[in-house]
Amino acid sequence: GKAFKVAVLPGDGIGPEVMAEALKVLDAVEKRYDVTFERTHANVGGAGIDLEGKALPETTVNICKASDAILFGSVGGPKWETLPPDEQPERGALLPLRKIFGLYANLRPAIIFPSLTAASSLKEEVIAGGFDILVIRELTGGIYFSQPKGIEGAGRERVGVDTMRYSVPEIERIAHVAFQAARKRGKKVCSIDKANVLSTSVLWREIVIGIGKEYPDVELSHMYVDNAAMQLVKWPKQFDVMLCENMFGDILSDEAAMLTGSLGMLPSASLAEGTFGMYEPSGGSAPDIAGQGIANPIAQILSAGMMLRYSFGMIEAADAIDNAVAKVLDQGYRTRDIYQDKAGLKLVNTKEIGDAIIAYL
Amino acid sequence: GKAFKVAVLPGDGIGPEVMAEALKVLDAVEKRYDVTFERTHANVGGAGIDLEGKALPETTVNICKASDAILFGSVGGPKWETLPPDEQPERGALLPLRKIFGLYANLRPAIIFPSLTAASSLKEEVIAGGFDILVIRELTGGIYFSQPKGIEGAGRERVGVDTMRYSVPEIERIAHVAFQAARKRGKKVCSIDKANVLSTSVLWREIVIGIGKEYPDVELSHMYVDNAAMQLVKWPKQFDVMLCENMFGDILSDEAAMLTGSLGMLPSASLAEGTFGMYEPSGGSAPDIAGQGIANPIAQILSAGMMLRYSFGMIEAADAIDNAVAKVLDQGYRTRDIYQDKAGLKLVNTKEIGDAIIAYL
Ligand SMILES: CC(C)[C@H](C(=O)O)[C@@H](O)C(=O)O
Ligand SMILES: CC(C)[C@H](C(=O)O)[C@@H](O)C(=O)O
Repeated sequence: GKAFKVAVLPGDGIGPEVMAEALKVLDAVEKRYDVTFERTHANVGGAGIDLEGKALPETTVNICKASDAILFGSVGGPKWETLPPDEQPERGALLPLRKIFGLYANLRPAIIFPSLTAASSLKEEVIAGGFDILVIRELTGGIYFSQPKGIEGAGRERVGVDTMRYSVPEIERIAHVAFQAARKRGKKVCSIDKANVLSTSVLWREIVIGIGKEYPDVELSHMYVDNAAMQLVKWPKQFDVMLCENMFGDILSDEAAMLTGSLGMLPSASLAEGTFGMYEPSGGSAPDIAGQGIANPIAQILSAGMMLRYSFGMIEAADAIDNAVAKVLDQGYRTRDIYQDKAGLKLVNTKEIGDAIIAYL
Repeated sequence: GKAFKVAVLPGDGIGPEVMAEALKVLDAVEKRYDVTFERTHANVGGAGIDLEGKALPETTVNICKASDAILFGSVGGPKWETLPPDEQPERGALLPLRKIFGLYANLRPAIIFPSLTAASSLKEEVIAGGFDILVIRELTGGIYFSQPKGIEGAGRERVGVDTMRYSVPEIERIAHVAFQAARKRGKKVCSIDKANVLSTSVLWREIVIGIGKEYPDVELSHMYVDNAAMQLVKWPKQFDVMLCENMFGDILSDEAAMLTGSLGMLPSASLAEGTFGMYEPSGGSAPDIAGQGIANPIAQILSAGMMLRYSFGMIEAADAIDNAVAKVLDQGYRTRDIYQDKAGLKLVNTKEIGDAIIAYL
């Protein structure tokens, strides 16, 4: 049988609780498919700060380097919010991980499950039948990482500077990811830019059009970022794959995720060239409900599923996880965040919904 | 009586039709208050391109320079969409107008009228009772205007570059606008930034906190832009004044406007230091319905009202316009974009709703 090495980084808040359920799912996959997941746990975020002095300790980086993929929980909490931005759990762990491992392609599905439309703040008629958007966000370039960046001068003479820079190869490789993903789903790419104002966007649009010619079966359109922020609210079903540079992807993927009403359900993948990737829930560490065993582990479990799909090529097992989650929701199992007082719905805790998912595997 | 000079720039699409109604409102104000509005018409946008060769002709700039305020319609349409971005009606007219006249403070109200909640794509329970957000957007700095900006190199070696730069005085003056506006309304400012990633945001937050100390009666909070894009969808009522740098304001003000469901109702103001300002509807030129006399002129009429309020200090007349619009909506008058087949609602055209508003003045 095959063996894969997984760096397990549970992090803070509900991270460890929901990670426990995802690891149970990996156990179940090991039993059903001929595969072994060799797991090494490491500290990250607030746990990294408390136990090893920084949000992304050296040991953790080395464990990730020795692995085939990273399964990441969530980081952050009030305890570390007064640290300088650079040292805080979220920024201090995520940005260096993205850079060190070249995780240039962030895949963030925003799916509204037909059985969960009640949780969305959008009207029923806008989302009837659900929607299924995949935001593909460039993750290692643009205004996040380009130089110069900093505050120059002193006192009232100070000037803050950030630089948004994109090269042709950076745009090409993320465009390929979007077109290839679209091919496996709705066959539409909407590329988001601000080409009426930004030079990076003018180049972005030109290169995306060029790459699009290699995918004649995929329909390509372009939309300004401000209009996209509106269209998501007005009629989310018009979108299939949204291709975004780093900052626009940060904003629009969060908007799209919130429109589903079930942040606790959404996984994400951050991929490097080759098969290495990092997988994490889209939601946060929810310190307010941490330690109570009531958090929704579905995003973490679906993140493990994405890891099987994108890093380990285990499509069948990944599909099985997605199907098990869908079945459990159909059966009416709900953690508190998605529960409503309605006939047929069963309020369950973190462990119970994890067990139910495993039972369907 | 007083006299004010107004540069009237109707533009394209529905621009001229809705402008006609706003000018009728100015006539009515002249009759009721002891004031004269000396109006000079000028071409802008597609009309500028067709008649004088560019989106913002010299004549138009000179007419604006000789005026106390600009009343702007809307620009753009399919006819000019294939021009290079720089020359297109929207970008080619708006960005130079902002720069030439130093229009650094963009006020974009996103109000959901309680009688129009049906038009929003948000659920009734999320918007019950309406909401009233004022986005204050910095409009002459940041990534829109800072250098270097451009595409360097050749072929696949090309690199696109944009620069986001903010100085202390630029942040200070827009912060003052936000706090002063908040004082006259809900007394809350939420400053939007991305201080966990951007250096401009770190400076922005520090300076906004400093200016906030001068307004102890106003409650100041800070929110990351990605979270703000989510929170707008989740619970728009949490916001009073949102203070944004240029690009974040572009995105969030459009998202907030669309959440109201009535883009055709929303005015905006772009203010310079002193009393000069430009006033325009938040919506577009709607070429699909242009020339039919069915467009909603309310955003243009409310824009004229903002002109009286901010450039001419005519608070009473501005309030009278706002009240007349509210009354006409209460009476059930609706243009097609906001009409529903419901008892008590009267479907009217552009001219009829304009006349009804004037009757209430
Ligand atoms: C924590 C922050 C640096 C990060 C980002 O902006 O990329 C987060 O918002 C995300 O989307 O993963
Ligand atoms: C047309 C464009 C340059 C402009 C902007 O981005 O500022 C528009 O979107 C706006 O918000 O007024």
